[in-house]
Amino acid sequence: MSAIHFNLIKTCSTSGARLGSLTTPHGRIDTPIFMPVGTQATVKAMTPEELVQAGAQIILANTYHLYMRPGHELVARLGGLHRFMHWQGPILTDSGGFQVFSLGELRKITEEGVKFQSHLDGSYHFISPETSIAIQEALGSDIMMCFDECPPYPADYAYVAKSMEMTTRWALRCKNAKKGKDQALFGIVQGDGARTARAERMALQEIGFDGYALGGVSVGEEKKLMHEVMNFSAPFFPMDKPRYVMGIGAPEDLIEGINAGFDMFDCVMPTRNARNGMVFTSFGRLNIKGARYAEDSLPIDPECDCYVCRNYSRAYLRHLFRSGEILASRLNTWHNLHYYLSLMESARKAIAEDRFAGFRKNFTKKDLVLTVLCNIFICLKKGNRKLTQNYKWRFDNVWFGFCDGNTCRWTGCRWWAVCPDEPCAADFHVCHFLFSPHPPTAEKSKGTPYSA
Amino acid sequence: MSAIHFNLIKTCSTSGARLGSLTTPHGRIDTPIFMPVGTQATVKAMTPEELVQAGAQIILANTYHLYMRPGHELVARLGGLHRFMHWQGPILTDSGGFQVFSLGELRKITEEGVKFQSHLDGSYHFISPETSIAIQEALGSDIMMCFDECPPYPADYAYVAKSMEMTTRWALRCKNAKKGKDQALFGIVQGDGARTARAERMALQEIGFDGYALGGVSVGEEKKLMHEVMNFSAPFFPMDKPRYVMGIGAPEDLIEGINAGFDMFDCVMPTRNARNGMVFTSFGRLNIKGARYAEDSLPIDPECDCYVCRNYSRAYLRHLFRSGEILASRLNTWHNLHYYLSLMESARKAIAEDRFAGFRKNFTKKDLVLTVLCNIFICLKKGNRKLTQNYKWRFDNVWFGFCDGNTCRWTGCRWWAVCPDEPCAADFHVCHFLFSPHPPTAEKSKGTPYSA
Repeated sequence: MSAIHFNLIKTCSTSGARLGSLTTPHGRIDTPIFMPVGTQATVKAMTPEELVQAGAQIILANTYHLYMRPGHELVARLGGLHRFMHWQGPILTDSGGFQVFSLGELRKITEEGVKFQSHLDGSYHFISPETSIAIQEALGSDIMMCFDECPPYPADYAYVAKSMEMTTRWALRCKNAKKGKDQALFGIVQGDGARTARAERMALQEIGFDGYALGGVSVGEEKKLMHEVMNFSAPFFPMDKPRYVMGIGAPEDLIEGINAGFDMFDCVMPTRNARNGMVFTSFGRLNIKGARYAEDSLPIDPECDCYVCRNYSRAYLRHLFRSGEILASRLNTWHNLHYYLSLMESARKAIAEDRFAGFRKNFTKKDLVLTVLCNIFICLKKGNRKLTQNYKWRFDNVWFGFCDGNTCRWTGCRWWAVCPDEPCAADFHVCHFLFSPHPPTAEKSKGTPYSA
Repeated sequence: MSAIHFNLIKTCSTSGARLGSLTTPHGRIDTPIFMPVGTQATVKAMTPEELVQAGAQIILANTYHLYMRPGHELVARLGGLHRFMHWQGPILTDSGGFQVFSLGELRKITEEGVKFQSHLDGSYHFISPETSIAIQEALGSDIMMCFDECPPYPADYAYVAKSMEMTTRWALRCKNAKKGKDQALFGIVQGDGARTARAERMALQEIGFDGYALGGVSVGEEKKLMHEVMNFSAPFFPMDKPRYVMGIGAPEDLIEGINAGFDMFDCVMPTRNARNGMVFTSFGRLNIKGARYAEDSLPIDPECDCYVCRNYSRAYLRHLFRSGEILASRLNTWHNLHYYLSLMESARKAIAEDRFAGFRKNFTKKDLVLTVLCNIFICLKKGNRKLTQNYKWRFDNVWFGFCDGNTCRWTGCRWWAVCPDEPCAADFHVCHFLFSPHPPTAEKSKGTPYSA
């Protein structure tokens, strides 16, 4: 009897996206889901109550960090990780593998396990599949991960193949080491070899796990390859178990992962970027440090209904960031997590309504157009050419241009585009074309300061 | 017509303590009150909603810092400080005087005002009484402070006398510079000269302000002198206006200030100390970094009902602090502000019930006993003498000793004392004697591991 139960509610007919429900000892999760990362028994800058308000249903904690400090045995004596950190919902713990392998020169791998030096004090430690499970059992997470080797990218094929075989042997040892019945255990297939490692995938499934994860993505490879690996791998995972892509990613990566048929994701991007002043919006990323926000009375994203966007201006958030205030990290983190978790909610809705392909297309279009605009801007800047309305480009069947005249009152956007969708063909600010539910004509009626 | 209205509800018959109610454009404040300090338009680590939950009714913001960054005119254009920082309650702004004078070599004082260099970029600035009021009016605080010179301590008497005369001339200029009618203005008497500056006090009252403040305390003088100055000064302030002691203090200083007849206080101590891991409890201060808390499952203060004490253990808070987590600053700050604001609430209740003298005596006794214990401990440590039950001391009519036997299950206290209050005379753990509502007999019944 598994500690968790996965109910595959529906697979989108327009894509590979799956809608599911995962029941754990600490509550039910709707999938696809994003898991905020709480490395040191806290999702940085957030309280558990705020995580719930931002939409979090499950969080991830890092086995390596908690083993090092405060120590898994201490956490166990204090009643386990949930009680220790005052988080009532489900927790997934990684295996510590990724952190240990990222220590580089400080670690040595053998069949038995990994010997390494602490990043805190240089002391020597040893983690094997058995100790990784023991640590995760002491922490008391709802979902444990098998201890795996993460080969670097790029790596020699022969090395990767050998590594994958060992990871599979380690997976069996993890399963055998697992004592309790109230924690689930996921197996891991390393992504870099995912195209060829049919034998390992089969071996993993024969061992039998409560869920399966794709590892070794987002380790330095190009995005296109990451997306390819996800698309190639998903069909080989069992239909009736949750599928988890480890360590990704940017919002567009999550959309691609869902499209490929994955259910669970985690990444430090929303939290880490927030602390560096980068916030996600429905019209692209925004760096709150920018001088253009100095007197901007708008919220980060006028379309967003999170606590931060309901109460604080970009000008204030910029001031907090420049002043090094803790509240800057708090509010940016809150907003970014809300963005990620709302994106997952929208994706689930789109799957439920059997229109994920369209949802993804629209999302990707935004992303594409932003990339194009960014490139245009960089090209112009490099060429030291003045941006005027005389410049215009056609890209992916859309005409783009720059307007010297009025700017969008919401986003400050000064780019125009001509809508390629018949029968619209209206010209308007790019931000509206891309992201706003408001009709473009509303903006256009204010004047046409450019010639298309 | 003043922008604020002070209602002196009652003066305690057992002390000089006053119970009042101050109505401002942004709401009513119960006095005596402590004002958390929000230097850069944020009380560090806290949201406005959390401040309210911790019991805050009014906050203080620093004119100098906001003038420097983001600039008072920017704040005004964005709708004023309340809207900028999303705080709906009253705000008191200082005059910038203290910050400017603390710049030391970077500033030059003349009758006209103060020329100084920015601590941020070294740029030159000039603040006069008139510009200080203009800045505070742009910020839109409920209560503004007159621009004053803060002489250092100790300072030459002749210098202080001259400085005070100038501060009084500046006070008149501040009053004349004030344009709007929706902000109150407080006059300031500098504390160091408070004993002799009868002329200045009278001159200030003749100008007429909405409230009066005692400045120049807590600038390096001994606590005893600070308390003396407060006691000496209070009676000379008008009865019917709020009285504010600027920049103090420790909890015991607040109690002394209230006892002397002051109504308002501010200090960075609860917030700054929190970020350094020092938390206030009903049984003294506690440094959460301490190894003794590594596995301590108790909250910071078992007597406290704040969000932090309801949900987090000392062990977790220690872990967060050692890990450099933002949540450490957040939770410690929340608790400390709750401690300060609850102390004010208890003080108000004691005044309302005409028993502030007893309340103060009890509080001071705790403080005294803690000081004694601390000194005993330091002496023993210096002498490298082992702590055994053979040591006992009499101090302030209380017998103290150290027990090798059982420790208090709540605080870890290993000191015993004999209650001097007749007819009690029971011996029990110091922590219970001092701070606990639980009867000492409850603890004593567990055994008597010492000989008195």
